[in-house]
Amino acid sequence: MYELEATYRIQSTPEKIEARAQALAIEQSIEMPPTAVRQPELLQKVLAQVDSIQEAGAGYFRVVLRFAEQTTAFETTGLLNVLFGNCALQEDVELLDLKLPPSLLSLFAGPRFGIAGLRQLAQVEGRPLTCTALKPQGLSPTQLAELAYTFALGGIDIVKDDHGLTNQPTAPFAERVPVIQEAIARANAETGGHTLYAPMLTGGPKTLHRHLRIARQAGVKVILTAPMLLGLATFQELVEDLGLAVLAHPAFAGLRISPPLMFGKLFRLLGADAVIFPNHGGRFAYSPQTCLALAQAARAPWGHIRPALPVPAGGMTVERVEEMLGLYGLETMLLIGGDLLAAKDNLLERTRQFVQKVAVSTGKV
Amino acid sequence: MYELEATYRIQSTPEKIEARAQALAIEQSIEMPPTAVRQPELLQKVLAQVDSIQEAGAGYFRVVLRFAEQTTAFETTGLLNVLFGNCALQEDVELLDLKLPPSLLSLFAGPRFGIAGLRQLAQVEGRPLTCTALKPQGLSPTQLAELAYTFALGGIDIVKDDHGLTNQPTAPFAERVPVIQEAIARANAETGGHTLYAPMLTGGPKTLHRHLRIARQAGVKVILTAPMLLGLATFQELVEDLGLAVLAHPAFAGLRISPPLMFGKLFRLLGADAVIFPNHGGRFAYSPQTCLALAQAARAPWGHIRPALPVPAGGMTVERVEEMLGLYGLETMLLIGGDLLAAKDNLLERTRQFVQKVAVSTGKV
Repeated sequence: MYELEATYRIQSTPEKIEARAQALAIEQSIEMPPTAVRQPELLQKVLAQVDSIQEAGAGYFRVVLRFAEQTTAFETTGLLNVLFGNCALQEDVELLDLKLPPSLLSLFAGPRFGIAGLRQLAQVEGRPLTCTALKPQGLSPTQLAELAYTFALGGIDIVKDDHGLTNQPTAPFAERVPVIQEAIARANAETGGHTLYAPMLTGGPKTLHRHLRIARQAGVKVILTAPMLLGLATFQELVEDLGLAVLAHPAFAGLRISPPLMFGKLFRLLGADAVIFPNHGGRFAYSPQTCLALAQAARAPWGHIRPALPVPAGGMTVERVEEMLGLYGLETMLLIGGDLLAAKDNLLERTRQFVQKVAVSTGKV
Repeated sequence: MYELEATYRIQSTPEKIEARAQALAIEQSIEMPPTAVRQPELLQKVLAQVDSIQEAGAGYFRVVLRFAEQTTAFETTGLLNVLFGNCALQEDVELLDLKLPPSLLSLFAGPRFGIAGLRQLAQVEGRPLTCTALKPQGLSPTQLAELAYTFALGGIDIVKDDHGLTNQPTAPFAERVPVIQEAIARANAETGGHTLYAPMLTGGPKTLHRHLRIARQAGVKVILTAPMLLGLATFQELVEDLGLAVLAHPAFAGLRISPPLMFGKLFRLLGADAVIFPNHGGRFAYSPQTCLALAQAARAPWGHIRPALPVPAGGMTVERVEEMLGLYGLETMLLIGGDLLAAKDNLLERTRQFVQKVAVSTGKV
């Protein structure tokens, strides 16, 4: 009955936290004063329950609420609405974690490929994967294809569009995708390699489906998208219809939902085969603990939901390969973009250095 | 060229703010070190520009960036990506405001009805509108229809579903919508009134379209939805295909985007005819200044974009009607839910009291 469990971090005081937790339970379920409810049985069937309250550092409390599963309507927007609909607007509340009962978990297919499937696509066993990005936007399809060709020659496993490369007039999706895919196929033919291209899919539902057809026709096997830019339920439906592997980008995902839950659990649940996230020590402020918890959430056993590959990124350098693999281990994809491009004329050598470093570090992780 | 303007609030120090603003301009455009860009012309065509930096209270700065319009790819997800894609993950940054040049503003239809169109639908002139909510979830379609009938008898202009009423087994969308619509039509026939019903639309794109057909067949003229639960581009496409008036609910919209921009501008731009938001002094922490700025943004002249009706809500009471109308004025819809329902057996009288108070307060605002 009340088997959906959500954990929140609430800023409060010891005097006020019980009332605050109860107010949150009301807000996220009946959304009216319990005394105003004329059907007392609804207080037993619909009103969320405060399961526990624990101190969690000065001025913060960890509050577990239990929800009646049927309040979610057994679908994604309903679930998100129950967990974090109105309280997304209450700045004292952060959503930390989630436990789905079988009745809800069974609604989700999760990643279609997962780590094992991505490894098969990329034909990589026994080492972490490598990824890089085509940028900056403003380059023509031919210029982007040249970069992609060089990255593929250098042995990168997945060459993705920069997430900022959407459908600009300088390189419209329909024009760049076939050209880049072809350039990578040419490099693969020369090296015997298996580099994959992941173009960035954005837009409303109609554009998504039009672009998806273009990508499929071009022979694309992996796409990149930003689930929060699409909307999480639109993302889920896209993945179901897709049949391709999916890298999820964190753009626009700045809600007060903990990164391990947002990227490690929700993106995975909705179908991401790999989740890109801002690694510590780059341009973003996540701690090493947060990053590791995120990676562990993405890979942890979770019913029938396949594990997703964590992809630490955001200002990473070739010099950090060993340290990153030390933290994240083998089941990881390292994404380095700008640091390779900064090599300019030496792009191929720098790319090979990245690929080589990952290969030799593997024995040590 | 660089006519898209965005204003951010950045937490920083006088020593660091210039570098921080420049880093933000890079993050949101080329997303790589400028020194690594091999085509110097892209630094003139794509790299965002820091237009101005002003102190804005202790430890905060107001930073205006200018973007090249074509970096948005002239569509919604591209625009959001440029404005707040990666920096949504940087907690020192809040998106405050936005100026769209004609090349971008012309992409958006805005509200189909706007304030004037909503007034025509509800047949209300010369006074603010009234709105209430059917809740709690858990009630059957018949029970919800009884409530709706009473609210309509009492003269409410728009009776909306609670935003938490999605597609639960206790009152599935397909079952409740015709029954509630019929109950309201019956009350209208008795009173000669024009109460409208706004059911809550949620789900992925396929469910949205299925539910939309059901709503249309039932004769529904207004729908309620939560743009951030759907995804903003999915919301925009839904509104374009819809032909019905739209109330936008703020659920799940807790990004660090200022409420006047998020609800007053973005929701309006994407097609909301009315925007529900948490009024000050209720269960949410918005200040009166924020609320008023939001209402003003929703109603301000903005090219061809029709004004949207502000709907302050979230724990409001009949006793606050005069004060709210004093703040927001005539072009407002007041939404009171739980406070009416708390009257229980006296629901009809309490509803009439609300409607009456709005009518008599009108002369004074």
